[in-house]
Amino acid sequence: MLVVMQSHSTAEQIERVLAAIRELGLSPHPMPGPTRTAIGITGNTGMVDSRTLEVLPGVRELIRVTKPYKLASREMHEHDTVIRLPQGTFGAGAFTVIAGPCSVEDESLIFRTADWLMERGVRFLRAGAFKPRTSPYAFQGLGHEGLEILRRASERTGIGIVTELMDTENADAVEEAADIIQVGARNMQNFSLLRRLSRVRKPVLLKRGLSATLEEWLMSAEYLLSGGNYEVILCERGVRTFSDHSRNTLDLSVIPPAKVMSHLPILVDPSHGTGRRDYVPPMALATLAAGADGLLIEVHPDPDHALSDGAQTLDFARFELLLGQLEALAHPLGRTLDLRGPTSH
Amino acid sequence: MLVVMQSHSTAEQIERVLAAIRELGLSPHPMPGPTRTAIGITGNTGMVDSRTLEVLPGVRELIRVTKPYKLASREMHEHDTVIRLPQGTFGAGAFTVIAGPCSVEDESLIFRTADWLMERGVRFLRAGAFKPRTSPYAFQGLGHEGLEILRRASERTGIGIVTELMDTENADAVEEAADIIQVGARNMQNFSLLRRLSRVRKPVLLKRGLSATLEEWLMSAEYLLSGGNYEVILCERGVRTFSDHSRNTLDLSVIPPAKVMSHLPILVDPSHGTGRRDYVPPMALATLAAGADGLLIEVHPDPDHALSDGAQTLDFARFELLLGQLEALAHPLGRTLDLRGPTSH
Amino acid sequence: MLVVMQSHSTAEQIERVLAAIRELGLSPHPMPGPTRTAIGITGNTGMVDSRTLEVLPGVRELIRVTKPYKLASREMHEHDTVIRLPQGTFGAGAFTVIAGPCSVEDESLIFRTADWLMERGVRFLRAGAFKPRTSPYAFQGLGHEGLEILRRASERTGIGIVTELMDTENADAVEEAADIIQVGARNMQNFSLLRRLSRVRKPVLLKRGLSATLEEWLMSAEYLLSGGNYEVILCERGVRTFSDHSRNTLDLSVIPPAKVMSHLPILVDPSHGTGRRDYVPPMALATLAAGADGLLIEVHPDPDHALSDGAQTLDFARFELLLGQLEALAHPLGRTLDLRGPTSH
Amino acid sequence: MLVVMQSHSTAEQIERVLAAIRELGLSPHPMPGPTRTAIGITGNTGMVDSRTLEVLPGVRELIRVTKPYKLASREMHEHDTVIRLPQGTFGAGAFTVIAGPCSVEDESLIFRTADWLMERGVRFLRAGAFKPRTSPYAFQGLGHEGLEILRRASERTGIGIVTELMDTENADAVEEAADIIQVGARNMQNFSLLRRLSRVRKPVLLKRGLSATLEEWLMSAEYLLSGGNYEVILCERGVRTFSDHSRNTLDLSVIPPAKVMSHLPILVDPSHGTGRRDYVPPMALATLAAGADGLLIEVHPDPDHALSDGAQTLDFARFELLLGQLEALAHPLGRTLDLRGPTSH
Repeated sequence: MLVVMQSHSTAEQIERVLAAIRELGLSPHPMPGPTRTAIGITGNTGMVDSRTLEVLPGVRELIRVTKPYKLASREMHEHDTVIRLPQGTFGAGAFTVIAGPCSVEDESLIFRTADWLMERGVRFLRAGAFKPRTSPYAFQGLGHEGLEILRRASERTGIGIVTELMDTENADAVEEAADIIQVGARNMQNFSLLRRLSRVRKPVLLKRGLSATLEEWLMSAEYLLSGGNYEVILCERGVRTFSDHSRNTLDLSVIPPAKVMSHLPILVDPSHGTGRRDYVPPMALATLAAGADGLLIEVHPDPDHALSDGAQTLDFARFELLLGQLEALAHPLGRTLDLRGPTSH
Repeated sequence: MLVVMQSHSTAEQIERVLAAIRELGLSPHPMPGPTRTAIGITGNTGMVDSRTLEVLPGVRELIRVTKPYKLASREMHEHDTVIRLPQGTFGAGAFTVIAGPCSVEDESLIFRTADWLMERGVRFLRAGAFKPRTSPYAFQGLGHEGLEILRRASERTGIGIVTELMDTENADAVEEAADIIQVGARNMQNFSLLRRLSRVRKPVLLKRGLSATLEEWLMSAEYLLSGGNYEVILCERGVRTFSDHSRNTLDLSVIPPAKVMSHLPILVDPSHGTGRRDYVPPMALATLAAGADGLLIEVHPDPDHALSDGAQTLDFARFELLLGQLEALAHPLGRTLDLRGPTSH
Repeated sequence: MLVVMQSHSTAEQIERVLAAIRELGLSPHPMPGPTRTAIGITGNTGMVDSRTLEVLPGVRELIRVTKPYKLASREMHEHDTVIRLPQGTFGAGAFTVIAGPCSVEDESLIFRTADWLMERGVRFLRAGAFKPRTSPYAFQGLGHEGLEILRRASERTGIGIVTELMDTENADAVEEAADIIQVGARNMQNFSLLRRLSRVRKPVLLKRGLSATLEEWLMSAEYLLSGGNYEVILCERGVRTFSDHSRNTLDLSVIPPAKVMSHLPILVDPSHGTGRRDYVPPMALATLAAGADGLLIEVHPDPDHALSDGAQTLDFARFELLLGQLEALAHPLGRTLDLRGPTSH
Repeated sequence: MLVVMQSHSTAEQIERVLAAIRELGLSPHPMPGPTRTAIGITGNTGMVDSRTLEVLPGVRELIRVTKPYKLASREMHEHDTVIRLPQGTFGAGAFTVIAGPCSVEDESLIFRTADWLMERGVRFLRAGAFKPRTSPYAFQGLGHEGLEILRRASERTGIGIVTELMDTENADAVEEAADIIQVGARNMQNFSLLRRLSRVRKPVLLKRGLSATLEEWLMSAEYLLSGGNYEVILCERGVRTFSDHSRNTLDLSVIPPAKVMSHLPILVDPSHGTGRRDYVPPMALATLAAGADGLLIEVHPDPDHALSDGAQTLDFARFELLLGQLEALAHPLGRTLDLRGPTSH
């Protein structure tokens, strides 16, 4: 951290800041300049509320230097985290696709989708049993019945299950049913939920909050990592801005800095990110080109009759076309589309 | 709802849209125009994902008309909701102040603050026993011990307790200790938590999410109201924008539209909203002038040594000065600062 | 400026950064720490593109310390700037109101409004002869004929004229007609226009850009000040955010930091800031309570028939009521509403 | 347009709205519903300030249906606009690259860059002679001397010149020197400049404003088109959001909706969009994958010593590598990278 004094600060004011720093158990390093003094601070500054110093007389501003996350940072963990499941890999050059309907509507839909995906080599199914809905009057998901359907689809086909956990009450049930547990954007800073998930033995797919900075997102990952769950997959799903041409503003530009700052794999959800099915394929191709590790994408055999999010969902034909385009693009980019033939189970 | 067709849409396309609307159980009302056709829709449109229609061929856009919240809307409930507690009133022209430290640090701090507030006629104490923190390494609050301290302060002085609930696990304990239960900005769309709180018998102070629209905020209130808890107090605490001159952008401009759209009382938290103690008093005065129903404000006997948020916290002297200014301003505005003398208990 | 090295940076990398700093004509001050080295930089860093250093190997980030504006800063100019015109004062505790229709529609409107304002003691008339319009098909203002009408209104009543300049071509004409020249939000970073206005002998009212930070706004003021025009009045008029409850998000929270960072007077335009006339009066009262120096406000004898912006415009009766409320509020705030009796002319 | 009445609006209120609509020269179409009445409006609604109706008693809201731009809209002009210059094509499946330094620093830089680009088949050079700078103290460009250098580079190599016009004073000079005239983000709503450029005989590259919606951007294009200049190229260059991981938030998600709403070609500037050279190549590849028509990109023989924007600028080696990657990606996408061999001149 660095304290920058005002240009007309007095020696007494500087002394008081030095004392306040020492009182916090930290070491001050004054650095006088021609027009003003700056004071470097070393020690465990992660615990300090920087604004305590900022309001002292003569202080112009206080600048934090060390990033507050450690385990999620590439500085502490130089090599990419690779998450390997029986159904596929996240990281290590693979481009892995998780597809399926917004919600578990009934068994027939899930079985039909799982069968179709496995035939095409897509080995992860996404579908929500618990649905966070802005309105209390909207369909809230099938709950435990939905989890049971997902469990049966997994038994039937061996497909990997990705489904959302909304609260700690249902943590055991979701952990049992899921191969990867999803944390939704609205829960990215539900710290009680994160703390609970730091103790599960399944990877967590952590969606970026609607107005989360990259640093806050990595801080939420840090909750999971610091509790002992090292298998965290980031997922960009659109942020909220002034822009109104799509449901959210899908921020593909976060991919390169996320790769620089952190070692965690990162996926993109172009379905929620754009909110319109005709915008999804070009954004999916751009996701691959921008260097992400995979896609979370909404696919449904009959999107026009889906119970939720139909407008942003691809049908099987459009999705198959997209898979072909992704495959064609992966090679010149030196990437591998992680599609596998149907497995006996 | 209203479907707007493209200017060159065909009769077949229009027919298909009419059929799709009927299929949804709704009634279409075609409205041909010189250059294009629009189709009004009536019926229970609240359950419809509007984008289902939007992607049909020939459709330009779909516009929602009815607001999706009912109970929180002034249309359904014309008169202001007034929440009366033994310690004070929210609504009905009162301007009511809730003050106290960011977190329950120890009993001595809470007793000292509660005593001082009661002497000045401030009858609600805010302090967090459970603290949502961006970093897993930051002070997370005293938890149940903190609740116990708050309970004793209430017994000792009769002061009303306002404290945050972060998860359903601690709902019973917080309901027991609190007179008003706070939902933090990061939990505004934690729907499991809202559903749980819709069943408590205490008023809920619902903070606006960092990037929540007024409509989304009222939808979260709707979760509480539709579950049977009609005592909801809104609280603006700053939103996230591009602007970097303060910690958040305190949105006082939401007060007049909130009063138009809803009947619920609304408070403002200028401490979190600005993040700097020297910006708090002018924003507190502006809150009163803009027509809000009160303040949630951070006050501490020694802010420079507070465990959290000290930089945005007023000391007793500065707060007392502010109370005087608020009192002087309330009269010409036709408002009453709801300060009461100490009560025997 | 401060360069922060990565924790595993090498001695060679540090040497290279030191050399790069010297090459820029600046002085490096290395500050080794337990886990990493930081390097302070002194000299004329205002001209340096900080990112040049940021991309050197081993550099984590580069932090700018000195603010890039000088003349607009309170550090260089401790006392408030006060702008005194024959019709009224901006700064020095006065709360000064500039009122009038959005655009100069015809002479009768302007004369009627000017006469009415002067009777009530409002001594500045705002009205646009040149109108920046998002659509090329919208009314673009009367242009030079509008300026002529304003000039005649000024002769007739002595009222001060505030009107917008959109381009350098019309600078002479607007300088001649106006007592205060307005720069619109969309032109806040029209640097050619600012440079031209730095040479006029009239005060400039500089509106904040739709997405301008406080620093950028003061940098635009710096263009005016550094060219020799020291009479700059800031004007907040709403910024663009995700929030959709009003036309723009009126950012009253910028007032206290603007007062801390700069010595320039600051007004607020609640008409453009909210876009709805029923939201204007509470925001106008809050403007005064928050410590601003005055208002720019849209008033029209018949807003429902105004050629532009009628929906956000007050009629005379509502405006007169507001003036009374402002007057009642000014006294307890220790402020003076700068209303003057009609002057002989 | 559609007026939505409140649920308890009276017959008198509805009558008054009908009358107000007729008074505006428009036709009202009442549409009574079970709980409320809506009123469709037809006629030339483009000129109407919708809020005039919105403030009438009993009105809940007013919804605009017809888009306010015509000539920029795909509805009026179904086929893609293709802009063909001797040096290359914008639209029609081509992916065209405009490259060069941020500013014209001296003749040697420009000649060296132009020669190198022509050798690689890049046939458009970008470089600013007039530089819009946030600070009045920063390098403002070489001005007319810079234009002269660009003119000589064009004569020498035949390369197409893309350079910015900041004000109408220099319009003739820039029109003479440039093959494509750039309008910067800060001038996207400088309507005087747009009106002047609607009369030039050169294509205009119109950058998106920092907080411009797609609709506003197309409205600014409409200024150019409606004045008679049909050769408009859109250019996304990053918008301003809360996000702080890069200089701006490069909004690739605007590409698909821009293609749906408009027929104009669209480029992306990943250099300004990200602000860091290591983020530029992945975003450039994603630009192609997302369906844009080309790139505007900063390239310099020695970025570390560039006078401006060096940190976001690629050197020749990195740029050449990127060109190879773009070429490899274009084929599977069914696109053509528009690189041409050096031409004799």
